[in-house]
Amino acid sequence: MKKDYIFTPGPTPVPPEVGIAQVKMIHHRSADFGALLERVLEGLKYVYQTDNEVLLFTSSGTGAMEGSIASCFSPCDKVIAFAGGKFGERLVEISSAFGLEVVAIEHEWGANADPADLARALGANPDTKGVLLTQSETSTGVVNDVEAFGKIVAATDALFLVDAISGLGAVDLKTDAWGVDLCVSGSQKGLMVPPGLAFVAVSDKAWNAARIATCPSYYFSFEAARKSQSKSPPETPYTPAITLVQGLDVAIGMLREEGLDAVFARHRKLARATQAAVEALGLRFLAQDRSRAFVTTSVWAPDGISAGDIVKLMRNEFGVFIAGGQGKLKGKIFRLGHVGYFDPFDIVVQVGALEMALNKLGVPVELGSGVAAAMEVLAG
Amino acid sequence: MKKDYIFTPGPTPVPPEVGIAQVKMIHHRSADFGALLERVLEGLKYVYQTDNEVLLFTSSGTGAMEGSIASCFSPCDKVIAFAGGKFGERLVEISSAFGLEVVAIEHEWGANADPADLARALGANPDTKGVLLTQSETSTGVVNDVEAFGKIVAATDALFLVDAISGLGAVDLKTDAWGVDLCVSGSQKGLMVPPGLAFVAVSDKAWNAARIATCPSYYFSFEAARKSQSKSPPETPYTPAITLVQGLDVAIGMLREEGLDAVFARHRKLARATQAAVEALGLRFLAQDRSRAFVTTSVWAPDGISAGDIVKLMRNEFGVFIAGGQGKLKGKIFRLGHVGYFDPFDIVVQVGALEMALNKLGVPVELGSGVAAAMEVLAG
Repeated sequence: MKKDYIFTPGPTPVPPEVGIAQVKMIHHRSADFGALLERVLEGLKYVYQTDNEVLLFTSSGTGAMEGSIASCFSPCDKVIAFAGGKFGERLVEISSAFGLEVVAIEHEWGANADPADLARALGANPDTKGVLLTQSETSTGVVNDVEAFGKIVAATDALFLVDAISGLGAVDLKTDAWGVDLCVSGSQKGLMVPPGLAFVAVSDKAWNAARIATCPSYYFSFEAARKSQSKSPPETPYTPAITLVQGLDVAIGMLREEGLDAVFARHRKLARATQAAVEALGLRFLAQDRSRAFVTTSVWAPDGISAGDIVKLMRNEFGVFIAGGQGKLKGKIFRLGHVGYFDPFDIVVQVGALEMALNKLGVPVELGSGVAAAMEVLAG
Repeated sequence: MKKDYIFTPGPTPVPPEVGIAQVKMIHHRSADFGALLERVLEGLKYVYQTDNEVLLFTSSGTGAMEGSIASCFSPCDKVIAFAGGKFGERLVEISSAFGLEVVAIEHEWGANADPADLARALGANPDTKGVLLTQSETSTGVVNDVEAFGKIVAATDALFLVDAISGLGAVDLKTDAWGVDLCVSGSQKGLMVPPGLAFVAVSDKAWNAARIATCPSYYFSFEAARKSQSKSPPETPYTPAITLVQGLDVAIGMLREEGLDAVFARHRKLARATQAAVEALGLRFLAQDRSRAFVTTSVWAPDGISAGDIVKLMRNEFGVFIAGGQGKLKGKIFRLGHVGYFDPFDIVVQVGALEMALNKLGVPVELGSGVAAAMEVLAG
């Protein structure tokens, strides 16, 4: 027997309650769905820590990111985008695809985006219309200091767009208090639902920008989404992924029951346990600052070993799905997951499987040493 | 006890096997999902009757429609769009949103689009880059003669884009033989899966147009989708709605087992039975030509009765969900459904519920007369 353990940082493990909630589809124009969507949209505000309206789209998170660009900006608008990983690079790509002028601030993969770089770039580009930042850069495990960036952007006319796809519901994100104008996320990370739904919390500042924006947009039109969601009960402009919304309702209920602070504390503890295990195994981290890196732990493969081999062995031999490196880190790092539906024993299993894989690959490890280090933290 | 009967023309009833297939999510970068996606993409070719590549997107059908416009056309390109219902109008809206010059041919809601109108419009607009037609106009029940339009478009340089969202897998659609260059559909109609997936079959003529198209596109980029789907095993550029793809795999298996010709024959028979019941009840049809109108049967409410009241009564008293009118037909018509996972007894239930609702509303009906007329056809 070999069980399937999905420990990737997206999609993340789906609670059985959420899985089962997809089975019996209700009609999206029924009173039941109206009440459900209303509850879900309110629940998203809770998770987002916002009073802003949260728009819901049927797409991956990338779709809602495109919607934010297309609905709130115009061709030739200047934006500053931080590219320190695959998803930061995607911010640049989407903006470029829609004809925006992008000031891309590339920083080392594994390093945090630096607020001082933003201050300098804004000084050099006072006509900046938007600042684009990834909160949790899933490809490196780095979690950026959204609050510090938000303070700088708030003093300008620019919109602050944050990719919170893997950060929301895992690490603290005070959408309103930190001045995030466009906060994008998706269903398949901290929200514990299969992929297919995406969200954006939209500030008044962003709505004002949307009024004069001229990029073309239809499916992801914010105006259309707001018009439908403003009905009582709320609707979506186009047929939504109903069964995923049913799952999201259950998942948000679980987050509410645990409480957002407890959810963040759990992610912190599981991440620290994972970090302790990695240190005990003598491996090196990619993320330089791990004080907020609670979404995924990215680890350099030991010298002479391909990270891809570690990932494959864990999948094929033990059924344990972790992620490898993306883009320029492919084959060099592997990523241990702890975002979403994770408990202490998922870390034990994951670290255990890693140790067994390293052992099989001839890397000298004292079996159980990583697990023990993790358990020391988990027991604390 | 009151059961839920979803008899709307979208979303359509979901087979339990498909519902259950969503429960246990697999990882989208696993070998299992690679094989599954490969099977699904091949299966879509079967349903589409095409050798063209079929692209898969996570969105409603409208998203894939937007993708077709954005990926294959440029601002100011002239397109001819047939608008004889809500979804025909959407073709005009999307094209306009992306800056295309739209020659909209509005025709009466309930009437078929006329190939002679196309020939005239092409004569007056020899610089036409695209012809946009709804195969099955779900808002009216009309099914247009795609083959006749295809012959006319094939003789020009224009692309033929067909909205087959509610038609695919219900009424015959020979994508290749009929010269459809961009054939758009969705998961939640004839394909019997919950909403959230959309598809486009893309001809070589359309791929050639895509090479020079300049509308902005990222999430729905055909080029990105083709690049990912060309890998072995195939992938999607962004995280797909995995659980819906799992459901689609099961649903396509069911369609293959029944056989496409039998699927079309079943839809024809169920539609004819429904039409017979409507006639027996002395009600009037909206669709003028019912020789291909096998997706949904649209019916005028009896004089002095609101169609909305019929729909509400059927929902609230009997749990039977049929659709009302959309747009300018709101309150005037109701639509009986028979697209997707429908068998003879779904027609019996639906007509029976209609008779009981009419009876409650004081419309003189001989209870059982519609059901009897339907059964005469169903038994044939």
